[in-house]
Amino acid sequence: MNHSREIEVEGHIIDSGIMTRVFDRIMDMGGDFEIITFDVGKKKVDPSFARIRVFAETEAKLDLITSELHRYGIRLIDADNVRLLPAEADRVIPTGFYSTTNHPTSIRYNDEWIQVENIEMDCIIKVDPNNSRAFCIPLSKLRKGDYVVLGEAGVRVIYPERPRETGMFEFMHGQVSSERPSETIVRKIAEELLKVKAKGQKVALVGGPAIVHTGAGEALATLIRKGYIDILFSGNALATHDIESNLFGTSLGMNLKTGDLVTGGHKHHIIAISEVMRAGSIAAAVESGVITQGIMYECVKAGIPYLLAGSIRDDGPLPDVITDVVVAQDAIRANLGDCGMVLMIGTLLHSIAVGNCLPSYVKTICVDINPASVTKLMDRGTSQAIGVVSDAGTFIPALLAALQHQKET
Amino acid sequence: MNHSREIEVEGHIIDSGIMTRVFDRIMDMGGDFEIITFDVGKKKVDPSFARIRVFAETEAKLDLITSELHRYGIRLIDADNVRLLPAEADRVIPTGFYSTTNHPTSIRYNDEWIQVENIEMDCIIKVDPNNSRAFCIPLSKLRKGDYVVLGEAGVRVIYPERPRETGMFEFMHGQVSSERPSETIVRKIAEELLKVKAKGQKVALVGGPAIVHTGAGEALATLIRKGYIDILFSGNALATHDIESNLFGTSLGMNLKTGDLVTGGHKHHIIAISEVMRAGSIAAAVESGVITQGIMYECVKAGIPYLLAGSIRDDGPLPDVITDVVVAQDAIRANLGDCGMVLMIGTLLHSIAVGNCLPSYVKTICVDINPASVTKLMDRGTSQAIGVVSDAGTFIPALLAALQHQKET
Amino acid sequence: MNHSREIEVEGHIIDSGIMTRVFDRIMDMGGDFEIITFDVGKKKVDPSFARIRVFAETEAKLDLITSELHRYGIRLIDADNVRLLPAEADRVIPTGFYSTTNHPTSIRYNDEWIQVENIEMDCIIKVDPNNSRAFCIPLSKLRKGDYVVLGEAGVRVIYPERPRETGMFEFMHGQVSSERPSETIVRKIAEELLKVKAKGQKVALVGGPAIVHTGAGEALATLIRKGYIDILFSGNALATHDIESNLFGTSLGMNLKTGDLVTGGHKHHIIAISEVMRAGSIAAAVESGVITQGIMYECVKAGIPYLLAGSIRDDGPLPDVITDVVVAQDAIRANLGDCGMVLMIGTLLHSIAVGNCLPSYVKTICVDINPASVTKLMDRGTSQAIGVVSDAGTFIPALLAALQHQKET
Amino acid sequence: MNHSREIEVEGHIIDSGIMTRVFDRIMDMGGDFEIITFDVGKKKVDPSFARIRVFAETEAKLDLITSELHRYGIRLIDADNVRLLPAEADRVIPTGFYSTTNHPTSIRYNDEWIQVENIEMDCIIKVDPNNSRAFCIPLSKLRKGDYVVLGEAGVRVIYPERPRETGMFEFMHGQVSSERPSETIVRKIAEELLKVKAKGQKVALVGGPAIVHTGAGEALATLIRKGYIDILFSGNALATHDIESNLFGTSLGMNLKTGDLVTGGHKHHIIAISEVMRAGSIAAAVESGVITQGIMYECVKAGIPYLLAGSIRDDGPLPDVITDVVVAQDAIRANLGDCGMVLMIGTLLHSIAVGNCLPSYVKTICVDINPASVTKLMDRGTSQAIGVVSDAGTFIPALLAALQHQKET
Repeated sequence: MNHSREIEVEGHIIDSGIMTRVFDRIMDMGGDFEIITFDVGKKKVDPSFARIRVFAETEAKLDLITSELHRYGIRLIDADNVRLLPAEADRVIPTGFYSTTNHPTSIRYNDEWIQVENIEMDCIIKVDPNNSRAFCIPLSKLRKGDYVVLGEAGVRVIYPERPRETGMFEFMHGQVSSERPSETIVRKIAEELLKVKAKGQKVALVGGPAIVHTGAGEALATLIRKGYIDILFSGNALATHDIESNLFGTSLGMNLKTGDLVTGGHKHHIIAISEVMRAGSIAAAVESGVITQGIMYECVKAGIPYLLAGSIRDDGPLPDVITDVVVAQDAIRANLGDCGMVLMIGTLLHSIAVGNCLPSYVKTICVDINPASVTKLMDRGTSQAIGVVSDAGTFIPALLAALQHQKET
Repeated sequence: MNHSREIEVEGHIIDSGIMTRVFDRIMDMGGDFEIITFDVGKKKVDPSFARIRVFAETEAKLDLITSELHRYGIRLIDADNVRLLPAEADRVIPTGFYSTTNHPTSIRYNDEWIQVENIEMDCIIKVDPNNSRAFCIPLSKLRKGDYVVLGEAGVRVIYPERPRETGMFEFMHGQVSSERPSETIVRKIAEELLKVKAKGQKVALVGGPAIVHTGAGEALATLIRKGYIDILFSGNALATHDIESNLFGTSLGMNLKTGDLVTGGHKHHIIAISEVMRAGSIAAAVESGVITQGIMYECVKAGIPYLLAGSIRDDGPLPDVITDVVVAQDAIRANLGDCGMVLMIGTLLHSIAVGNCLPSYVKTICVDINPASVTKLMDRGTSQAIGVVSDAGTFIPALLAALQHQKET
Repeated sequence: MNHSREIEVEGHIIDSGIMTRVFDRIMDMGGDFEIITFDVGKKKVDPSFARIRVFAETEAKLDLITSELHRYGIRLIDADNVRLLPAEADRVIPTGFYSTTNHPTSIRYNDEWIQVENIEMDCIIKVDPNNSRAFCIPLSKLRKGDYVVLGEAGVRVIYPERPRETGMFEFMHGQVSSERPSETIVRKIAEELLKVKAKGQKVALVGGPAIVHTGAGEALATLIRKGYIDILFSGNALATHDIESNLFGTSLGMNLKTGDLVTGGHKHHIIAISEVMRAGSIAAAVESGVITQGIMYECVKAGIPYLLAGSIRDDGPLPDVITDVVVAQDAIRANLGDCGMVLMIGTLLHSIAVGNCLPSYVKTICVDINPASVTKLMDRGTSQAIGVVSDAGTFIPALLAALQHQKET
Repeated sequence: MNHSREIEVEGHIIDSGIMTRVFDRIMDMGGDFEIITFDVGKKKVDPSFARIRVFAETEAKLDLITSELHRYGIRLIDADNVRLLPAEADRVIPTGFYSTTNHPTSIRYNDEWIQVENIEMDCIIKVDPNNSRAFCIPLSKLRKGDYVVLGEAGVRVIYPERPRETGMFEFMHGQVSSERPSETIVRKIAEELLKVKAKGQKVALVGGPAIVHTGAGEALATLIRKGYIDILFSGNALATHDIESNLFGTSLGMNLKTGDLVTGGHKHHIIAISEVMRAGSIAAAVESGVITQGIMYECVKAGIPYLLAGSIRDDGPLPDVITDVVVAQDAIRANLGDCGMVLMIGTLLHSIAVGNCLPSYVKTICVDINPASVTKLMDRGTSQAIGVVSDAGTFIPALLAALQHQKET
């Protein structure tokens, strides 16, 4: 193995497990290494630093290894400027393009480090040479002639370290379990939410229709009215059933007070949609007094933005629904800025969609009755998510109570 | 088809779906029928009555068909006395024995109808000729010479009718769903529980260790102290973790207030068991002041019987645990008399065990985070069970609150 | 109760449980009934016939009851012509509109019974007076001035009877169970599929990306090549991972032969999409030799239509994906004609979407590793679906083997 | 922090993540550390070595920290002999007892290191001073006067390192996923099984009744006949349904060839048990020709030991069932020696029971249709288990085919 290259890494690289991953990957990929310097941080707050020489049999293999290590925040010693190539056609990527992680990323361009804006996973870095800015864009936004970053040279990633402060996210990091004390979890989520709000960051809620079916619509409406939620991501079903429950007291025809199926109730959601059609939009229906309370009502009244993304199983859909999924994705991206926390409740589809656009440092909580849903979300890359196995009907009222309690004390 | 036999059936046989099943089974099994009389009850409270002639190609086939129909409450017109045969050895059943359903059953013996005592499914009817009593017994209790009922002749079953009054059990009959308004369901269960208590019947709770892990131990202890629960069926794990949480504030080493794993906490459950060993029993540990609160404490203080059945995954086990499963089953049977409602929470093993011994008219509610658990319980014959998909940690405190609220109003 | 109305119903109304439901609903809704005629079919093939007088306290209540009964196939004796009203604006439905079931439906128009075309649930019946045709349309297709059917008068529904022949669908009707003999189920599905093909009907497959992840892509490609599948409904993910596996041997970067994650494999799906972008379409990429085998390849080669519907979690998406969900729904509807069987494998989203557009007489099989998925599909109205709890990776190869075996014998 | 102690650790401590855990725990518990020596192994096969001084504010805190680190294989520099104390009564443990891990463990006794025999988790180490042997025993086996090890001083644990060779267990270590290529997984398990057999180690199968219900009984019988399985751990249900299927072709009354419920089939399992009662035992029933094929038949014929542990939901049970759960646990322990691999299929109860008694180096595969079952097994301490989400009915025949295929090639 006479091809080698020096790399370095710093931070809480031992206790965050980064060093473990680095040695692991080198050896798995048939490489070898020699430790040049390894300064282990002595105190909790001290970062560690390691300089390592990586060996491989060929230059190509060495490339593969350093490309892989790059994702854990490793840097080559001699940082080159980033390499760029223009796209040859719309939505056609140059061979060897750099594919993003969802961790904070910067590139070295004209001998300066610039931060990549709007970072999200599995995307492309496009550089605007005129004003020295770098953007993370999805394939669908790539246009002929855009300058695209190639390879890992000149790209730096900050891999998330295990949080040192003892908060919610240390407590349950990367875990899903139904055998945890429920009240404790809800209390910790409430604390974390208040901290996020205190920092001036936004809290987003991604919700599915189960919120209304399980009777938690009123509690969510209260959360919105009291200012705990800054943006709502959802789809046609949540909004429709919320409006249905306001107009008829039912959700998919089931009386929410008694749990009985109401005669003729199967028509209610269609009528609810039609009434909003008649008014022209949800906001218009609120203004004209057709909708008098509920989740959508509180959003309109409080000026909380709501984004309803279409899906092929939608009835209607409501006029506010964005039926083109690429347009809806762009709208998700446009609304995630400043979000410090995302609560995902009872919807795998919308949770994965929003999760795909989130940087890894946004606190993400996924509440679902099905443990497999949470696992799937993490498998799809939103590995920072914390899973809570519970139903919306009990979780949201409990969260509201915990928030009110903590506000008062 | 020139072999035939007349049968009759009465009750709410159309709206309970019994008639549907009867015609169904006759045709499925290759038989035919002729309706002789069919008086349909005109009013809600009126029973219907049908007399039908069943045809089959052979007498043997006719036997098979009527044997099957028997389980839906159908009777042969000319009720013979029951046929009996003595068991030739311990736990060896005569060929052609009658296998019980879990519905109320009587037999015609010496030209009189006598009720079978302690009915449960998949058992044997043993007749004591000396005092004309009939008992439902499991195979393990059959002794050489016991008189065993053969075939269906002379046996009557009352198939459960769909309840007419609009209560909990009409509302959700045979259903499992996570998409129901949670608070509504809890409120209905609380109402039903109070009705059962008001009738002077007992409420049993079958519980697993998840009750303690999810932080609901205190709420269950309160339910017991306030007199809502009359008997507790459980195993070594629930009792151990309840006592561990009293001694150390942990469950399987996890701090129940903070959710953190406590250093050395993996020893706690062994120490808890050992301390009870030292005292001699749970009751002795309560009396001597070792155990000062919690589920088991309240049971001892209130004189509520608790039955801890052993399982092969037990640590210890506690001295109160019945380690022989056949003895434990007998103890379950001995304690189910007068039970009007059984709440099963977070344990499939104990739920099926208790379910096996329950007559079909006992109101049974199964709460589990996993919908498949409820389905399995029903598949195993406890078809009267209502499934609630929820976790113990939120369900039990909510039930306690609903009960207190209804008591006050 | 001095308001009354006569209704009639015929068919296998007892053994299909229709009569049970009718009596049930009348009594639940506070009505009463008197049986005028009740001719029970004597033989397996004989239909029964009932004429019943329904009573209620008010005419309005009577309307509610007969409206409900209507859904079970009941008819009023004096069949009026259907009532129509023009829509006052696009996508705004007249009050009192008739909401469809997914059962075969006809309307009485100008004193003739005409069949409603393209029946699906929760839609509207639009009548074209010029040529006396009636169409089932979704709300999104309603245009100002369209004639819409009101109420149930003049509408007839044929409620599905329990199938009498002993096939797959009698065997497992409305059931979901993981505790069934797997080989037996697969064999029965194969038999049923061959019967459907023999009748000249089409077999549709609705599939998710798990088919490729679990290694069943090759088996599905073979099913298509051998002509067992006539149309493919899916999304961006299945097609992308199929093409990724063709280009790189991986699915989401995982080597399908070894199960290992491949270095740099996280880029593969983006490259696969980009390569199709470069070619212009999947068909063009097949023709130009970029795609050389797999599911999409076989579809293109065999001329099997494939419909890829967009979703908000899509990467890319591929140029063939229909990104507007309303357009995608229309495309689903346009392709379901003549389908006799639909196999739904590993995708809840697409299964519900297709299920929404299916008449209740289409044989529907839903294969998912998660029993809750199947339950949800049925709860959403596709109640004819049969659930098979299995993973795609074992199910599809087993189905292929069973089909080949039966073809040969 | 002026209390300190030196510790050392060696092995693949970085790439196995051990070092990460060590630093983590020290800091979490409020301690601090100084690295004295840190020799990182340069090559794949080279072990690393670290000597570290741990600081804490009090001696008690230092004890807690080193006690915790001990479980990751860390040693105090000055190894004392182990401290012992006799038990004051049967099943009463001395305060401060050492609670075992399931990793290989030795103790320093009379200045020599001796291996602890029969290691399993959450147990006690008992020392026999007469012949200098140390045994891991459960609480139930502790007798008054037994010498019990206290604290961690003089105890060494070998924490499992991440396997370096690329086998099944590197491939999927600690993972549960339904989105993996099924055939690849089955092939790897077959390879691993043959390797274990080639080393002369035993393969155990822990199985539930779903094996018979899903139609895989014949495939398991073949596995046993061909010598792939050396011991069977199960319960009453598997054996009963296996014998039922031999006597009647049914499992719980369902015809295994057609999937139909057989008339009178609900009696079959009781008759099966009664017939074995009559013969006296399963072996006697095989010898007398009552049982002619199936899982239990092959066990008896091949002299494969089978251990049927009782549970409170058992019908019967069969005379071979060990009804006392403490006796059954002892029997599990007595039969696990030399096991190199354990296959757990379709039973959470028996899997946890056997898992509790397994050292961490035994290769453990858990096959269940429910992902939560596998997670629960790992949470209960059997963290080496690999989860396969599949049903028995497809997994076992596929495993048999893969084994046969590999044998031939």
